[in-house]
Amino acid sequence: MIVLRREIGDVLRDVRQKQGRTLREVSSAARVSLGYLSEVERGQKEASSELLGSICEALDVPMSGVLREVSDRIEVAEALLLPDLLPTDLSALEQRTRRPELAGV
Amino acid sequence: MIVLRREIGDVLRDVRQKQGRTLREVSSAARVSLGYLSEVERGQKEASSELLGSICEALDVPMSGVLREVSDRIEVAEALLLPDLLPTDLSALEQRTRRPELAGV
Repeated sequence: MIVLRREIGDVLRDVRQKQGRTLREVSSAARVSLGYLSEVERGQKEASSELLGSICEALDVPMSGVLREVSDRIEVAEALLLPDLLPTDLSALEQRTRRPELAGV
Repeated sequence: MIVLRREIGDVLRDVRQKQGRTLREVSSAARVSLGYLSEVERGQKEASSELLGSICEALDVPMSGVLREVSDRIEVAEALLLPDLLPTDLSALEQRTRRPELAGV
């Protein structure tokens, strides 16, 4: 199952680590507790809209960019989940690839 | 100030209204209360990741698509806010456009 807060947390952590900054530095700049930021990054806590704004500001990245990256990653995850949502189509595919000589058996 | 939950709410309401569906129909399909969905659409309540997933499913739209639209709208809002964030640049622009004959006055 795709969980938005996990994807947001992953992107925020990736941005922070690419900048070579610590949880302590960014949480301080964003005026959130280190524990809170850590939980958000690990997808264990929903970031409120206001705090997500503060974290983006502390990371000096536009919120739109973070959300675009999140959207891109979720799109990939959705594509991977698609087969599970299409049992009928997969079963049709299986029928088409069945050996002709076994047809009707 | 850009508030994520307001943008998400706007997009969810736009999607629902384009489908010609009522709050009652979608809240029932998403198994959330009508009041909760209404508050989410008006940006008054943060949707948890799980409930946002349920609402997207009820609307039959991929979460990635909703987030891309949200990201696009926030990008526009960020561009509109940009002048407020660049007082120095604006002041430089003002100096460049000042009439030359007044230079040094």
